[in-house]
Amino acid sequence: MTEKIAIIGSGLVGSGWAIVFARAGFTVDLYDSADGTAAVARDLIAQRLSDLKAFGLVSSVEEVLDRVSMAPDLRSALSGAIYAQESAYEQVDVKRDLFSQIDAAIEPATLVGSSSSGIPSSAFTGHVGCRDRVLIAHPVNPPYLAPIVELVPAPWTRPDAIKAVRALMERVGQSPVEMTREVEGFLLNRLQAVLLMEAWRLVEAGLATVEDVDLTIKHGLGLRWSFMGPFETIDLNAPGGVADYARRFGPLYQSIAASCSEQRVWSEDLIARVEQQRREKLPAEDLGKRSAWRDRKLMELAKRRAEQF
Amino acid sequence: MTEKIAIIGSGLVGSGWAIVFARAGFTVDLYDSADGTAAVARDLIAQRLSDLKAFGLVSSVEEVLDRVSMAPDLRSALSGAIYAQESAYEQVDVKRDLFSQIDAAIEPATLVGSSSSGIPSSAFTGHVGCRDRVLIAHPVNPPYLAPIVELVPAPWTRPDAIKAVRALMERVGQSPVEMTREVEGFLLNRLQAVLLMEAWRLVEAGLATVEDVDLTIKHGLGLRWSFMGPFETIDLNAPGGVADYARRFGPLYQSIAASCSEQRVWSEDLIARVEQQRREKLPAEDLGKRSAWRDRKLMELAKRRAEQF
Repeated sequence: MTEKIAIIGSGLVGSGWAIVFARAGFTVDLYDSADGTAAVARDLIAQRLSDLKAFGLVSSVEEVLDRVSMAPDLRSALSGAIYAQESAYEQVDVKRDLFSQIDAAIEPATLVGSSSSGIPSSAFTGHVGCRDRVLIAHPVNPPYLAPIVELVPAPWTRPDAIKAVRALMERVGQSPVEMTREVEGFLLNRLQAVLLMEAWRLVEAGLATVEDVDLTIKHGLGLRWSFMGPFETIDLNAPGGVADYARRFGPLYQSIAASCSEQRVWSEDLIARVEQQRREKLPAEDLGKRSAWRDRKLMELAKRRAEQF
Repeated sequence: MTEKIAIIGSGLVGSGWAIVFARAGFTVDLYDSADGTAAVARDLIAQRLSDLKAFGLVSSVEEVLDRVSMAPDLRSALSGAIYAQESAYEQVDVKRDLFSQIDAAIEPATLVGSSSSGIPSSAFTGHVGCRDRVLIAHPVNPPYLAPIVELVPAPWTRPDAIKAVRALMERVGQSPVEMTREVEGFLLNRLQAVLLMEAWRLVEAGLATVEDVDLTIKHGLGLRWSFMGPFETIDLNAPGGVADYARRFGPLYQSIAASCSEQRVWSEDLIARVEQQRREKLPAEDLGKRSAWRDRKLMELAKRRAEQF
């Protein structure tokens, strides 16, 4: 008998998770508190599986889809599940209420990961009995194409729960990273935050266009970061490795960082300027088409990754 | 008769530039003030061209190499050149002295780009007559694989000089981006600086390992940034585009950025910790081998880019 995963909240993120687990051979039960959402999700999953099939990233749409069911209620979704992935709306009180319901229905051995992208789980699990089995398991969208998943324990999360969720994520082909404790934004959105804040600042100061900032990353830093990450990049950029690099360039980076440490809110005027520059490159009516293009590019990257490892 | 480019300073960066121009059909004259350096550079260029040939990125090693000569002195390197790329050691007084020499030998129509990665050109060209034809043209190493080049004018750089260098860079297949005025670190190293500072801070705080920070970028953010850049990424991550995204997530990013705005110098203790974690992944004796691996990966990416555009 195959093991079962509960997907709680079946919007874009939840249905993406369903593909990750079903593709790896697990039985998946979808539940969403909003009527009809789980059925929509199943159609969306079928369509995404067809795209993946076209890229050779799944061998059979039907085989994977057959493992995905809609659960009539939370209790049956959780029944017999070894793991539940919670992907509800990202608002503390929504998640708090949902975790009360999960706590009332969950079996003793089921572990829970929350897809929260920035709110630490201690903000919404402190009141429930199962809290020592809950942690953050934050994916990048779509999780079946971008393998990273951030595992972040609350102060009360049991170490063996972290270990088991890590092993599960590796088993389904994801790349788990672990934080030792909670911090707003976790790793991914903290790193994105500082880069975005500087990118917006450069545009606000009139130093460069939105397009030129994008080109600088995609034809410059992003090339290396896409297969190495920032530490390995600098480790290879000085003859003596990262320590040599840090001593050579640390003062420059610290000076730059000091010069942009003033924090500014993105004004409506600035947002309008960025929006205008983007719309000149990509009219609003083409956003959907371009998102489909992005997903095909991610599929090509996933395909090459699959071939190489 | 083919047009000629002068390469002044023929270390790693200068010899990389020689490939960019010779590959595009220009005659290239190499000059370096250190005896024997230009000859070493020509051997290095020959070896790199063989690697490029193996990836189908140049059609003939000999044809390209035949266009590269060593000039006996600065004057003959500059003689008849439409453009000179200066890639001397990055120190203000070294570059100041060199620009005095360039100014004494340069012909009236020759433009000059400096490979300086962080020092604005106004710091070393204010004293020379040709200063209105000099600007920053900062590449990513190696420039024949990473196409970005940052063009940054000094206050006295003529607009038509910027325009002409931009056109030249496009002609040789680079991706020029332009800053409207000087700022320390330009675009690329400013964006790298803020991300690196936060990466080091996360490791210093014991929140995550060096390896997990690298995984977060290479299996998460770096995937999208490698073909879209940060603005297009967020433009596609909210239903209403970048303005919608800014209103939804701006407060989160601003809160994160505020929490890491304290600037810290990388202590020797922290450098030692990062160095140790890197050396566990990659022993010092394998740095060269891994750099060769990185260059092959960049060649694969360049090959795919060449096929797509």
